[in-house]
Amino acid sequence: MQKTGLVLSACARTWKSVQMASSGVARRNPLENKVALVTASTDGIGLAIAQRLAQDGARVVLSSRKQENVDRAVAALQGEGLSVTGTVCHVGKAEDRERLVATAVKLHGGVDILISNAAVNPVFGNIMDVTEEVWDKVLDINVKATALLTKAVVPEMEKRGGGSVVIVASIGAYSPFPGLGPYNVSKTALLGLTKNLARELAQRNIRVNCLAPGLIKTSFSQLLWMGKEREESIKETMQIRRLGKPEDCAGIVSFLCSEDASYITGETVVVGGGTPSRL
Amino acid sequence: MQKTGLVLSACARTWKSVQMASSGVARRNPLENKVALVTASTDGIGLAIAQRLAQDGARVVLSSRKQENVDRAVAALQGEGLSVTGTVCHVGKAEDRERLVATAVKLHGGVDILISNAAVNPVFGNIMDVTEEVWDKVLDINVKATALLTKAVVPEMEKRGGGSVVIVASIGAYSPFPGLGPYNVSKTALLGLTKNLARELAQRNIRVNCLAPGLIKTSFSQLLWMGKEREESIKETMQIRRLGKPEDCAGIVSFLCSEDASYITGETVVVGGGTPSRL
Amino acid sequence: MQKTGLVLSACARTWKSVQMASSGVARRNPLENKVALVTASTDGIGLAIAQRLAQDGARVVLSSRKQENVDRAVAALQGEGLSVTGTVCHVGKAEDRERLVATAVKLHGGVDILISNAAVNPVFGNIMDVTEEVWDKVLDINVKATALLTKAVVPEMEKRGGGSVVIVASIGAYSPFPGLGPYNVSKTALLGLTKNLARELAQRNIRVNCLAPGLIKTSFSQLLWMGKEREESIKETMQIRRLGKPEDCAGIVSFLCSEDASYITGETVVVGGGTPSRL
Amino acid sequence: MQKTGLVLSACARTWKSVQMASSGVARRNPLENKVALVTASTDGIGLAIAQRLAQDGARVVLSSRKQENVDRAVAALQGEGLSVTGTVCHVGKAEDRERLVATAVKLHGGVDILISNAAVNPVFGNIMDVTEEVWDKVLDINVKATALLTKAVVPEMEKRGGGSVVIVASIGAYSPFPGLGPYNVSKTALLGLTKNLARELAQRNIRVNCLAPGLIKTSFSQLLWMGKEREESIKETMQIRRLGKPEDCAGIVSFLCSEDASYITGETVVVGGGTPSRL
Repeated sequence: MQKTGLVLSACARTWKSVQMASSGVARRNPLENKVALVTASTDGIGLAIAQRLAQDGARVVLSSRKQENVDRAVAALQGEGLSVTGTVCHVGKAEDRERLVATAVKLHGGVDILISNAAVNPVFGNIMDVTEEVWDKVLDINVKATALLTKAVVPEMEKRGGGSVVIVASIGAYSPFPGLGPYNVSKTALLGLTKNLARELAQRNIRVNCLAPGLIKTSFSQLLWMGKEREESIKETMQIRRLGKPEDCAGIVSFLCSEDASYITGETVVVGGGTPSRL
Repeated sequence: MQKTGLVLSACARTWKSVQMASSGVARRNPLENKVALVTASTDGIGLAIAQRLAQDGARVVLSSRKQENVDRAVAALQGEGLSVTGTVCHVGKAEDRERLVATAVKLHGGVDILISNAAVNPVFGNIMDVTEEVWDKVLDINVKATALLTKAVVPEMEKRGGGSVVIVASIGAYSPFPGLGPYNVSKTALLGLTKNLARELAQRNIRVNCLAPGLIKTSFSQLLWMGKEREESIKETMQIRRLGKPEDCAGIVSFLCSEDASYITGETVVVGGGTPSRL
Repeated sequence: MQKTGLVLSACARTWKSVQMASSGVARRNPLENKVALVTASTDGIGLAIAQRLAQDGARVVLSSRKQENVDRAVAALQGEGLSVTGTVCHVGKAEDRERLVATAVKLHGGVDILISNAAVNPVFGNIMDVTEEVWDKVLDINVKATALLTKAVVPEMEKRGGGSVVIVASIGAYSPFPGLGPYNVSKTALLGLTKNLARELAQRNIRVNCLAPGLIKTSFSQLLWMGKEREESIKETMQIRRLGKPEDCAGIVSFLCSEDASYITGETVVVGGGTPSRL
Repeated sequence: MQKTGLVLSACARTWKSVQMASSGVARRNPLENKVALVTASTDGIGLAIAQRLAQDGARVVLSSRKQENVDRAVAALQGEGLSVTGTVCHVGKAEDRERLVATAVKLHGGVDILISNAAVNPVFGNIMDVTEEVWDKVLDINVKATALLTKAVVPEMEKRGGGSVVIVASIGAYSPFPGLGPYNVSKTALLGLTKNLARELAQRNIRVNCLAPGLIKTSFSQLLWMGKEREESIKETMQIRRLGKPEDCAGIVSFLCSEDASYITGETVVVGGGTPSRL
């Protein structure tokens, strides 16, 4: 008797919240009025993410290490009518990280979104072969710089009452790509960094999630798939019989930064065409 | 020299695909013209998903075991101007599953989307306490019926050239809820069912993914959180200091059914407010 | 100052416990005086486990569905001087489960160890192909019977002050074997069953762990590897270039049942020759 | 008909291999004639592992950064009649790593086993608080040095026809310990390092596995559990109601280095008393 009453009153609550959600539907520009920083975003996955965030309403500040690449990407996206500016940033340098944040604050008054796309050049090599210098470079840029850039951005997010971070890892974090040892290990570290940051930042209303792309057809990954024969043999092993495109990674990142993902933090989403990764 | 050429030509390809993606942006109704079946959808998470799919443009057929619940949910969503119909369906019965599919085909010409939300009444109990009958019920409805319903829907999806399935599991699949043994185990099984179905159906252009909600405030889960004191003590253990709402689960399901997720299959997304689950 | 004191006193404690551990080393028969039930143990992995537990000092009661298989296995192991008896048991039948437990109690006064090796005949088939009956059979024997057999054994373990359960799953639980859909899903369920049982039984001093064998060369799995060419092509994909042997699975099971594993519960150990499974 | 024949012949094979395994049982000193290097092994988990490997028959070379700690640990273990020597080694320094390997080769003619126990002092701090220097230290010692030490040892293992590596990570790799951000992240990286090394070294007959201890009562971890009240509240959250002891971690490491584990590589075993980690 009492149980029935409880159920009914819970149903009533559900109905009320459903109705509130359905009134005021306005998901056309889910990132409207948001300011987004995207690193390593003048090519490949980073560029596709920058483009998508801008299409979804964000004002985007893109960046990479070379001015000419920044200029080209900004021009291209502005040519599509998108709100995009850019600045040179080597994420391994403290002054560059600070300048990146300062640029967004100066231009747009703050930062709401950070997409940390690791920027180290593809470092091929097995762990048994690479030198200490390779480890230094890969861990510095892929792991340490991601942590420090987040640390630099968080105070700005707090001023805005919260924010969203997405870290770009790789499916190699779960199932190593052959010949990319230190790279794979650094990406595994990012899975942990995501969990740790999510925990530390939840009370500040900042969510932290992670994207793990599979084999995406970019200039970065071309040594893995280049060659008709190799590409065909790779496809044979995939469930969805094509390599991924940069755009395949962009929608989920925008989603994770939107209000729709407000109860999702500390999670990694794999975009891998069904490639085995984890349960 | 040759390498530079390769990089440049890959860059050119990237640009081209970026431009194609940015032209023709029309994400307002990402599920327009799609027909969606949603089971156990007259309350809680299932209802929120049905509502969201309809808001995003789908024609939704909702269902549950009782006519009055179906009628009430359909009336409510139609009252919001959404394209929603419903039919009674006990997913454990073959004839009900077939009727559900037939209803969608008759009304809308086919099926593109299946959201399989397990429908068994909350079965509380530890594994050391429950009887064989509880196991039969939980495994039948949560696992077997999900597999058989998917099997019944797939031929219709194939006629449309593909489709998308989302299975609703639970964070209890990774980290058991106390006192819900067989329920937790059945949800773990769904993680595997998702992987298996994704593999089997990829060649038919059908993607299969999974949602693992954390503790969501519904009538189903109320025995877990009911009581001011208990709710407060639960929140203390969470990173995001609130229980989830059914709507927190709806956006990601719609996303997984959309074109934006076309390279995502076999994956489980946790919506748990940062509750520990897996790496 | 105070900190140093704390560290020193902790060191002293460590030393003391190290010394206690090293005095009285007697690991020759780690399972001496233990009584072990092993199901599906007249062939393949189950037989190798039964043999190993007996070699390590346990009194073993093995079982399977056919008397002649039981007789043959018992004779062989007794012929090696091992303490092994056997009884027919169809784990899907309540009376058989009870008789199995009663046999051990009658012969040896109790039960300390249960190895639950699922016993269903290999059920090949994709989820899109199999009938409802296949699901019933696989879930009944692999999942439900494992839970119910554990439930039947636990009271006897409690009388002895504790015990150890090892459930035999499969690497297919993580990465589906093609063509074995329901089998894979049932094995995924066992990963969850392990977690749930570990949680429920920790307070009774009963540990519950899980073994996930990779591709082991047995009569059970032969349709996967049979044929010179197929076997060679399988080996090509493995890191350790051979199929597993039943004995490869036996040592870890004995270890998990020993005192050495007294702080390990709820865990799954993969014996897969490096086959990708999870992080 | 033919199928039955196949099954019978497979059974015959199984029987033969079972018989071979059971003849010649000699598991008393599973690591006899093996030479083992153990880093950070003059206290806590490392010391317990060194002791256990020696008890199981190995000739052990232990090490840590301070001569007095090495001397004390060597004296204590020699006092138990174990074959243990030691040398000072700061694993972050190339010359120290080389000297460690050279010591083992000089004393014992080679190396069969490497236990890499990360040696950095406990570095407490949230990611939002720590400086760049903390990251450098933690990643250098815990990740890079583990990789480089393995690289230094592998040629010696190859000369012996194979070997076994066990990396000591932490359950914090899966579920972050609060207040230990960079430490947790470095341990997550080790899960990936294990997978990568296993893959690279399988063809050289070297297996690489990983241990993830839960909360073990050592001087290293005391700031986590120190204080009667805190220790009690921690125990409340555990399934096995005690903190782990260093010895709880030693048996599994010895097992992973033994012939019994010859088909296990790339795996991580959690010794956490049931603490939630992963599925």
